[in-house]
Amino acid sequence: MEFSSKLLENAVNEMSQLPGIGKRTALRLVLHMLRQPATQTNALSQALMQMRTGIKFCKSCHNISDVDVCEICANPNRDESVICVVEDIRDVMAIENTSSFKGLYHVLGGKISPIDGIGPHDLNIVSLVEKVKLGGVKEIIFALSSTMEGDTTNFYIFKQIQDFDVATSTIARGISVGDELEYTDEITLGRSILNRVPFESSLKL
Amino acid sequence: MEFSSKLLENAVNEMSQLPGIGKRTALRLVLHMLRQPATQTNALSQALMQMRTGIKFCKSCHNISDVDVCEICANPNRDESVICVVEDIRDVMAIENTSSFKGLYHVLGGKISPIDGIGPHDLNIVSLVEKVKLGGVKEIIFALSSTMEGDTTNFYIFKQIQDFDVATSTIARGISVGDELEYTDEITLGRSILNRVPFESSLKL
Repeated sequence: MEFSSKLLENAVNEMSQLPGIGKRTALRLVLHMLRQPATQTNALSQALMQMRTGIKFCKSCHNISDVDVCEICANPNRDESVICVVEDIRDVMAIENTSSFKGLYHVLGGKISPIDGIGPHDLNIVSLVEKVKLGGVKEIIFALSSTMEGDTTNFYIFKQIQDFDVATSTIARGISVGDELEYTDEITLGRSILNRVPFESSLKL
Repeated sequence: MEFSSKLLENAVNEMSQLPGIGKRTALRLVLHMLRQPATQTNALSQALMQMRTGIKFCKSCHNISDVDVCEICANPNRDESVICVVEDIRDVMAIENTSSFKGLYHVLGGKISPIDGIGPHDLNIVSLVEKVKLGGVKEIIFALSSTMEGDTTNFYIFKQIQDFDVATSTIARGISVGDELEYTDEITLGRSILNRVPFESSLKL
């Protein structure tokens, strides 16, 4: 792409560094900004910079937060003895949306993925093991994505904490609510039969 | 969406103002920035602000430029007597890429579109008519998208300049190179038959 303006080219190049945004999309976005009042671009730039420099991570669960200890960890009504292990803040938001979990979270910040060069030491695993060691935790719930990397991470953490007096569980894998049985892949279907639940308990939610 | 951080929420809200970017995509982009070094977010913010405040429009053709008169208009090797009318800078870039046009451009900055509240006076039409009035322009080529709005804009400009001594033409509408005839819509196919060209001239490009 040949640009008639260095400023425009710079802006497009920087925008196209973002994942899923190519040069064409970046140009479309930047031209949109030019049609809007300058205050809007200003607000975007400020918000991004303030976020990048000002954001903190909760000292206890490593979730993104504006304060040292996040709202969830600081809430006395939540059950400290149950910890749900998730990958990132999006998973926390998704689970919070269901209103079905009243314990605390532990945000790993990723999954073990040798292909991407992410090992156990790049994740917040040590602090989780410390929490378990200190006692007071009754159950660890693994809520990672059901992928090779997710399963590997689950297993790695399980190995680290299995000698302590703590129960471990993983969120159920099965067919989604509203799914047609015939289109479900065989592994999911197989697991959903192996891990079948008493009919009465399925009526609860 | 409930965010655990006001800074994060702000950044996501500002990002999701951009066209085609919803809250989920915005969150994904912002979380990506948090994983990258702060310098990168800084560079993006700076580039956007500098572009928004520093960018100029060529006094002659209204294309985006860093100087008062853009490179194309200032180039003595280009044919000043032929002006190609386009909607925005992306069209200029697309036509420049073909290397088949050696005249000048005139960027309207949009198309007449009553539904979106864009009338002739919101576009750079007066200055185009002035150029024609001054003389020296032999041909105006309309190169707008082949839509209702594009055709309306073409016709509006044509009415304004038809009394002057200037030829007007429009880029050919026809089937794309590589297209299958059977999948072409009937209007395009009909036009491509009406506006058929001598076979020898089709061998040129």
